[in-house]
Amino acid sequence: MADPDPVPPTVLIVGGGFGGLRAARALAGAPVQVVLVDRQNHHLFQPLLYQVASATLSPADIAAPIRHILRDQANADVVLGEVASVDLDARRAVLVDGRGLSYDFLILAAGSRSSYFGRDAWAGLAPGLKTLEDALEIRRRFLLTFERAEQEEDPDLRREWLTFVIVGGGPTGVELAGTLKEMARLTLPQEFRRIRTDRARVILVEAGPGILANFGSGLSEKALQGLERIGVEVRLGQPITAIEEHAVQLGGERIPTRTVVWAAGVSAVPLGATLGVPVDRIGRVLVEPDLSLPGHPEVFVVGDLAAFTHGPGGALPGVAPVAIQQGICAAGNLLATLASRPRQAFRYRDKGSMATLGRGRAVAHIGRLSFTGYPAWLAWLFIHLMLLVDFRSRVFVFFEWLWAYLTTQPRARLILGKKTRDI
Amino acid sequence: MADPDPVPPTVLIVGGGFGGLRAARALAGAPVQVVLVDRQNHHLFQPLLYQVASATLSPADIAAPIRHILRDQANADVVLGEVASVDLDARRAVLVDGRGLSYDFLILAAGSRSSYFGRDAWAGLAPGLKTLEDALEIRRRFLLTFERAEQEEDPDLRREWLTFVIVGGGPTGVELAGTLKEMARLTLPQEFRRIRTDRARVILVEAGPGILANFGSGLSEKALQGLERIGVEVRLGQPITAIEEHAVQLGGERIPTRTVVWAAGVSAVPLGATLGVPVDRIGRVLVEPDLSLPGHPEVFVVGDLAAFTHGPGGALPGVAPVAIQQGICAAGNLLATLASRPRQAFRYRDKGSMATLGRGRAVAHIGRLSFTGYPAWLAWLFIHLMLLVDFRSRVFVFFEWLWAYLTTQPRARLILGKKTRDI
Repeated sequence: MADPDPVPPTVLIVGGGFGGLRAARALAGAPVQVVLVDRQNHHLFQPLLYQVASATLSPADIAAPIRHILRDQANADVVLGEVASVDLDARRAVLVDGRGLSYDFLILAAGSRSSYFGRDAWAGLAPGLKTLEDALEIRRRFLLTFERAEQEEDPDLRREWLTFVIVGGGPTGVELAGTLKEMARLTLPQEFRRIRTDRARVILVEAGPGILANFGSGLSEKALQGLERIGVEVRLGQPITAIEEHAVQLGGERIPTRTVVWAAGVSAVPLGATLGVPVDRIGRVLVEPDLSLPGHPEVFVVGDLAAFTHGPGGALPGVAPVAIQQGICAAGNLLATLASRPRQAFRYRDKGSMATLGRGRAVAHIGRLSFTGYPAWLAWLFIHLMLLVDFRSRVFVFFEWLWAYLTTQPRARLILGKKTRDI
Repeated sequence: MADPDPVPPTVLIVGGGFGGLRAARALAGAPVQVVLVDRQNHHLFQPLLYQVASATLSPADIAAPIRHILRDQANADVVLGEVASVDLDARRAVLVDGRGLSYDFLILAAGSRSSYFGRDAWAGLAPGLKTLEDALEIRRRFLLTFERAEQEEDPDLRREWLTFVIVGGGPTGVELAGTLKEMARLTLPQEFRRIRTDRARVILVEAGPGILANFGSGLSEKALQGLERIGVEVRLGQPITAIEEHAVQLGGERIPTRTVVWAAGVSAVPLGATLGVPVDRIGRVLVEPDLSLPGHPEVFVVGDLAAFTHGPGGALPGVAPVAIQQGICAAGNLLATLASRPRQAFRYRDKGSMATLGRGRAVAHIGRLSFTGYPAWLAWLFIHLMLLVDFRSRVFVFFEWLWAYLTTQPRARLILGKKTRDI
C-alpha cells in the first residue's frame, strides 16, 4: 500500500500586489498550498492609478479581484485580511482581527505607503496616491475645486481655488500634473460659464535638481520641456517647507492653493519594522542575495518592502518590474529548497522606464534607447496595455483611452463619496 | 436706436434627474436663463443602478456630469449645491451653505429618497438604493458577505452570512434579487474554496399579494416563476416586522441574515414639505393639471416630488417616463406663458414597463402587448441602451453587458470604501 499523500507545505504570501501575485502564480502546480492574504479584495495595477485620479479610468478598469485572477489555480487560497504581525519563531502570522495563519514558508510582499517624512499632519492636507480610495479622493478634490472656483466671486480666492500643487517629480507626480493640466485645458473649458479652466495653474514641485531623476538627464530635460509646453509650472530644487490649509510654502514663497497632492515619497508598510530584523531608513527589510530574511531561509521579502542592496548602485527602486522579478525569484528559490537544489541570487534586469506627459507625449528609455514624443507615447500605451493582468481590462482600457483621445472627454468625472457640502 | 436687450427671465431648476434635465433641455434656445442646481455633479440613470450594486457596471457607465450634458446649451448654467428651502413670496431658493438663488420661474424636480415608513433605525441596517453611493455600499456589503462566509467555521453562522434578504417586490427589488442570485450561481463559485456560493439564499420579501404589482397579474405570475426558477425565494403577503443586526422578522418567522437591502418604499425629498403647500401621504406636492403649484403659476413641480392626481387611477408612479414627460410639459407651459399662449394640462402616456429577472429573462408590457423570456430581455437591453443620455455610455454599457453575458464574469467586483476591518 502506498503512503497517504503527505500534507503539502503551506506558503503564506502577504500582499496581492505585483510581487505577491507573481509569486503565487509561479507556485501554480507546485506541491505546496498557497495562502495569499491581502487587506483588499483586489489586485491593483498601480502604474495607471493616476488615470483614476484624473477621471479617465474607473476603478474596475485597473483592478480585479485577486480571487478572480487565481480562480483556476487549485493550490491557491485567498484570504481577505490585514496582517498585524509575524511570529518568526512560531512561523505564524496574526491578522488584525486576531486570527492566526501558520506557514512553512512566508513571502512578505506587503508593499509601501505614502510617507510624509515625519510631517504626519500633512497627510490630511495633501493625500498621497497609493490606493483606489486615494485616487477617488484626489479625483473628488480636483473636480470639486473647479466647482468651488465657478461659484467664487472674489478673484483672489478664485485664483486660489484654481491653483493645484503636486509635490514630487517622480513618474506619479509628472503623470498626474500632465493629465490634470490637460483636463483643465481640453476637457473642462466648455462646461464652465464663469471661470477659464484652461488658466488653472498646475505647479509641480521637486526638491531635487530635475524631474524623473532616474531616467537620466537627457530625458529629465525633455520631460521638463514637455510639461512646460502644455503649461505645467515646474519648480526644481525647492523642497516644500510647509503645507497649510490654504497654501503651501516653498523656499521663501507662499503659494495660495486649496488642492495639494503628495507624490514625494513612500516608506515600507509598518509590518517590516515589527519583524525585529534590520530595516533601512524608509523601513524596508534588508534581505540576503536570495531575497530571504537573514537567519530565516523560510522567509522571503520582495517588492517595495524589501531593501535589496547586493546589486550595483544601492537599493532598487520601488517599481513594478522589481516586485514582479523578485516575486518570481522568491517562488523559484522556495521550490529549489523543496527540491534540494541550490538557490539563485536575485539579479534585476532593468528593462527601462517610461512616463507620459499628457496627450501624445511621453519619455521612455528601453535599454540604451531613448524615445520622446509620440513614439514614446505609443510605446507607453502598448506596453501598459500588455502589462494589465487580465485580458478584459486590456479591452476596456483600450476603448476608454481611444474614447478619451478622440473626444478629449474622459468619462469618469464623477464626484462621489462625502456629501458635497462637506468640502 | 434699438432698446438694449431685455434681461431674460431666470428659470431655476432644482434637480438634475430625469425631470429637471429634460426640462432644462426643453428650454434650449428659449429666451430664458436656465440655472440648474443639483447636490451631485452628475445625472444618474437610475434604472440601471442595481447593476452597479451587483458589480456589473461602474458608476461612470450610468452617470455623466450634468455640466457635460449641458455644455453646448448656452443659456444653461449648472450650480453644485443643495437647496434647503424656497421662499415662494420672495421667489428665492436658499442653499444649505446660505447662498441664495433668485428666480422668475421655478421647476422643482428634486426627486425622492428611500423611506422606512417611520422605522428610521432600519436605515443603517438595510440600505436603500437611490444614489451611486448607495449602490457602492450595497456592492461592498454583498462582496464582503461572501468573504466573511468563506472565513467562517461555524456552519450556522456561515448560513447566516450566505442569506440575503431584499425587501420590496417592485422592479428594483426584483432586478436586484435576480442579478444577485446569478452572481452567486454563475460568477463566484469558482473563486471560493470553502463555501458553495451557489447555495446562497436570496429571499425577496413583498408585503403585497404579488411582485411587480403594476405590471398586471399575468406578468406578476410570470416574474415569480422566473425568479423561482433561478432559485430566488419569494415571500408574498408578508411584511417585514423587524430588522435586527443579525436577522429579519417576517410573520412569525425569524430569518438569520447579515445582509438586508431596502427596496420597499420611497418618499419625496423633504424640500416639498418646506413649501407650506398641501402634500400627500409620502410628501409629494399636489400640483395643478398644468403641473404648477396652486396659487403659484410661476412654480412647477415634476417627477417623484409631484403628486399628479388629475388622471385616471390616482397619483402617477415614480418612474423615469413620468418625470421625463412632466419635465418637458412644465418647460412647455413655461414657454407658453412667456408667449402669452394658454398652458396645456399634463397627460401621461404610459409606454409600458419592463424588468429583468436575470440572464436572458425579463417581463415586459408595451401598450397592450406582453412579452416574457428572451424576447422581453432583448427588448429590455435595447430600450435601456437607447435611453442612456449620452452616446458614450451606450457604447461602454453595451460592451460591459456583452462581456458579462459571454463570460458570466462582470468586471466591477471591487470592495472599496471603508477599511475591510470595519465590517
